Amino acid sequence: MSKNRQYRLAHRPVGAAKETDWDLVTELVPNPSDGEFVVQIQHLSLDPAMRGWMNAGRSYVPPVEIGAVMRAYGTGAVVASRHPDFPVGELVTGEFGVQEYALSDGHGVRHIDRRLQVPASAYLGVLGLTGLTAYFGLLDVGQFQAGQTVVVTGAAGAVGSTVGQIAKLHGGRVIGIAGGTDKCRYLVDELGFDAAIDYKTENIRQALRTHAPEGADVFFDNVGGDILDDGLLRLAHGARVVICGAVSQYNSQTGAHGPRNYLALLIARARMEGFVVNDYEDRFGEASEALAQWLADGRLINVEDIDHDSILAFPETLTQLFAGKNTGKLILDLGSAP
Amino acid sequence: MSKNRQYRLAHRPVGAAKETDWDLVTELVPNPSDGEFVVQIQHLSLDPAMRGWMNAGRSYVPPVEIGAVMRAYGTGAVVASRHPDFPVGELVTGEFGVQEYALSDGHGVRHIDRRLQVPASAYLGVLGLTGLTAYFGLLDVGQFQAGQTVVVTGAAGAVGSTVGQIAKLHGGRVIGIAGGTDKCRYLVDELGFDAAIDYKTENIRQALRTHAPEGADVFFDNVGGDILDDGLLRLAHGARVVICGAVSQYNSQTGAHGPRNYLALLIARARMEGFVVNDYEDRFGEASEALAQWLADGRLINVEDIDHDSILAFPETLTQLFAGKNTGKLILDLGSAP
Repeated sequence: MSKNRQYRLAHRPVGAAKETDWDLVTELVPNPSDGEFVVQIQHLSLDPAMRGWMNAGRSYVPPVEIGAVMRAYGTGAVVASRHPDFPVGELVTGEFGVQEYALSDGHGVRHIDRRLQVPASAYLGVLGLTGLTAYFGLLDVGQFQAGQTVVVTGAAGAVGSTVGQIAKLHGGRVIGIAGGTDKCRYLVDELGFDAAIDYKTENIRQALRTHAPEGADVFFDNVGGDILDDGLLRLAHGARVVICGAVSQYNSQTGAHGPRNYLALLIARARMEGFVVNDYEDRFGEASEALAQWLADGRLINVEDIDHDSILAFPETLTQLFAGKNTGKLILDLGSAP
Repeated sequence: MSKNRQYRLAHRPVGAAKETDWDLVTELVPNPSDGEFVVQIQHLSLDPAMRGWMNAGRSYVPPVEIGAVMRAYGTGAVVASRHPDFPVGELVTGEFGVQEYALSDGHGVRHIDRRLQVPASAYLGVLGLTGLTAYFGLLDVGQFQAGQTVVVTGAAGAVGSTVGQIAKLHGGRVIGIAGGTDKCRYLVDELGFDAAIDYKTENIRQALRTHAPEGADVFFDNVGGDILDDGLLRLAHGARVVICGAVSQYNSQTGAHGPRNYLALLIARARMEGFVVNDYEDRFGEASEALAQWLADGRLINVEDIDHDSILAFPETLTQLFAGKNTGKLILDLGSAP
């Protein structure tokens, strides 16, 4: 019988997650009971939010408990089933955890539509929560309108690269902030951003003055820290600052660095607003349809960075994510494609 | 001929404004030209915003220039006039500056309605920008609804005490945060707040947990700093954080302390929004009428702290303001009542 290797949370990390914060556990692949099925996982999604899930305390989802399999989204194929809606061979996506096989009762699991002829991994990117986060964050929380200027941070990341593209295809002017020449070139040359600012080498305030002389109508923030502070000083009147994440702060051992320039909200009559995509669940259908259509039309590129390796690469791949090595959605492909 | 004593800005202060940052200048009272009039100032309004006006650089109003008369709102009587709408004897309120006499062309000057039978000083409090700030900040920016919980900081200040009262008369639950037992007792016993937290002696987080167990629907912030940080951890789902001011930060020499807990906006799906009351100018009529009616009905108390002295007391009185000594609107009465 097959073995199921899993990463379980051993310790709550102090600062960045380390190899020793995990227990690698091997179990037998479970047998499904009535109404259950087993998924062999192919793609594991690596998300900045993972760091927050490892902390104790109140957040928008409960923390991962010590000893529990680490939470992760993934895709895979049903390999054993006693559930009528999820027969063997079906491709699915859901919150399957950092492991090779997952037992599920179908709760929160979506079917992957093979007729769309897109790789299953896109269901972790623009066709998944990543795309939905970009969609609702920009259009709903950010109240973006054609002709407006959008500045997006973490612009080469999964959400950031999607936000910029959605703003472009709605007639926006888009400036991305990302780390490194290659990423910046990619944003402009491949994704059609109007400009990209390399935070590693450029003076962000000055570059924003050049590329967004009238200020940002929407500042879509994935990173927090000094970059958010610089952005607050370049807001257009009535701007919306969308707080999607703060990847620069998640590993902080001294607590988050608060946005020192928050009184700019008063000067610009601007708002800063947080959101969690799950709140838009009743509108996921509308958004997913739009995203799938843009993808089919070639107007939206599913940017992904796939690491082909075994599950043993998970701790190291997560470290790469926080080091900002990836462009687009970072995925660990376990090589189990049916 | 009468003399006009004025305080002009000598230096941009580092930290708190000092006596030496001012030049006391004595001029002759000017003669009005055609279309002008002269006001003898009775009440000078002392406002936290004054500290910001003394700084160089972009804000919601231009800075006071070095050598210029310090900006201040006031009331007074017209004592010389060549303006048909502002005859001698008329009581008026406007941005007259820190001086004993002001020359005006009527721009931005309001008539004081003696028939309302309220002291002229109320036009610097609930019938002036203070009341309007509380009104639009709470009802419009804060989107307050009956039955909701409002937490207001700087609660014994001019704006804070008005915000709490307006929330009460609209059916809210109101918790004020203020400094000192006397102020806290006043908020509860005289103004009808549901609870008051003394930031000097109480643990704010714990007290908020007790008094606002479901969190704040509106967190109306006048102070910034640690108190704002504590409040961010007690937001109800969908809360509005209204940024009206940050009196704890204005004298900072190291830049404002940013709200470290701003990611709570994400957890609570909350927004933080800045505003400037002048943006609501086209709705001042509606609000002023409501405020005057509540005042006449005795449902709203114009809380004020009047220092009767000469204009020479201005620098010291301003220092008292930032030390939080006042309850309600701090006014310097120059004793020139007609």
